[in-house]
Amino acid sequence: MNLLNENDIASYTDTGTWASKAIKEAKLFGHVEIAGSSKEDNYTCIPKDLSVSPTASYLHITTNETIAGTQWHRIPFDCGVPLVADMSSDILSRVIDFNKFDVIYAGAQKNMGAAGVNLVVVNKNILGKVNKPIPTVLDYRVHIREGSMLNTPPVFAVYVAMLTLRWLKGQGGVAALEKINNEKAKLFYDTLDSLPLFRGVVAKEDRSIMNATFVIDNAAIEKEFLEVCKREGMIGVKGHRSVGGFRVSMYNALPLESVKAITDLMKEFATKRG
Amino acid sequence: MNLLNENDIASYTDTGTWASKAIKEAKLFGHVEIAGSSKEDNYTCIPKDLSVSPTASYLHITTNETIAGTQWHRIPFDCGVPLVADMSSDILSRVIDFNKFDVIYAGAQKNMGAAGVNLVVVNKNILGKVNKPIPTVLDYRVHIREGSMLNTPPVFAVYVAMLTLRWLKGQGGVAALEKINNEKAKLFYDTLDSLPLFRGVVAKEDRSIMNATFVIDNAAIEKEFLEVCKREGMIGVKGHRSVGGFRVSMYNALPLESVKAITDLMKEFATKRG
Repeated sequence: MNLLNENDIASYTDTGTWASKAIKEAKLFGHVEIAGSSKEDNYTCIPKDLSVSPTASYLHITTNETIAGTQWHRIPFDCGVPLVADMSSDILSRVIDFNKFDVIYAGAQKNMGAAGVNLVVVNKNILGKVNKPIPTVLDYRVHIREGSMLNTPPVFAVYVAMLTLRWLKGQGGVAALEKINNEKAKLFYDTLDSLPLFRGVVAKEDRSIMNATFVIDNAAIEKEFLEVCKREGMIGVKGHRSVGGFRVSMYNALPLESVKAITDLMKEFATKRG
Repeated sequence: MNLLNENDIASYTDTGTWASKAIKEAKLFGHVEIAGSSKEDNYTCIPKDLSVSPTASYLHITTNETIAGTQWHRIPFDCGVPLVADMSSDILSRVIDFNKFDVIYAGAQKNMGAAGVNLVVVNKNILGKVNKPIPTVLDYRVHIREGSMLNTPPVFAVYVAMLTLRWLKGQGGVAALEKINNEKAKLFYDTLDSLPLFRGVVAKEDRSIMNATFVIDNAAIEKEFLEVCKREGMIGVKGHRSVGGFRVSMYNALPLESVKAITDLMKEFATKRG
């Protein structure tokens, strides 16, 4: 709504549930081309070799897909058009050059705080180019002008975001968190790959350090593993209903100890059932 | 966006800051007619004798204007077209027949809880009549279909709204609150009218039971009164910067004792300065 004119093209990558929702909405405002898609691979990888029209208003990527368990590890900074990223599920998890993006948007509820507030970082230079009027509350220019306080802000969610950012700073900042996140992901995926009972569904080079997805190729044993997890107090391990299997989320707030706990459980379970 | 087609007319009442903001936005989606306005009276009253086109898609009213200090005490239920109301600042303050409205919308932050969540009550029958596609997140039909959980809801704000509604129920419900609100308003306005130093700016029949606005016709004494209020721990008495003077807000959460405290202070101040 802020970037795309009716007769212009926006370039989108289709990497899963969240990317395809973004595509659906963009189509309401102009033409959409798909620069790359992993849809035919059931979203188990990140598309390589993007094809972006040089006249596209922007390229949109979803940096991390929570349901598929994929993540862009090599951001297409060289796409030749403004870069727009939905970073909802991996913002502040790794050092990344914000200056190379034209729009970054992210809901707070993964790595920034409580649900109910969003972060939008915009390069002012790409605004003001659409012909249609934008409703005031959706117009980035207005929010910039009003210092993000056009209306009464969601004060509690903003406050929690502040506390979370202070915590993050106290941990040593994003670089320190990235190190811990990489350790967590390495421990998890190394364990996964060492146990034939479990099978990771995502191409290794595209695995998310935030959300690991995997399966057991036996419905009865899958069910049993979920029950064991629940008994041990590990909840939310069930994969999203749209894909099944398992999902282990390792957002910033999750300590290495928690990943150790589930990998120990997986090893124990595999020994018994493997 | 949900109700107005490009070539159709929406009828609006212009009663102040909030009504005029609604008018501005509606103009982005179709034709707007002004059914009644108190703009020429500096918004010190509620317009009577509305003129609503029978072909209008709806009539929009702002039931309470926080900055002007006015309130619709006689809702124009007989306007002949669907009725849409912004009730942000007086919802749950008085018994009112929700069935007679087609859309009611209200931010939570006055009488329902914390900022960050909104209530929308819609008569399903008036939806689905606009030709243009509505972005998913703004489409009332989608929110109805998804049980108000299209995306992760702002859980804390929803929780606080629940606690506030339970508190309200414990008080005896909206009817009990209305009684207290009327007592508070009567005490305040009776005091105001008894003290020549102060002057109410709103037509008596249109005074808001939520927000009382008044002035002292002497800038130096106005300033002094604000200082006295502050010293006595009464904050937020200064009128909105766009109108000046004073504003005493008496939302559901404010007890009668607080109104008694400021009216006592006004009497004492008037005796000294009057």
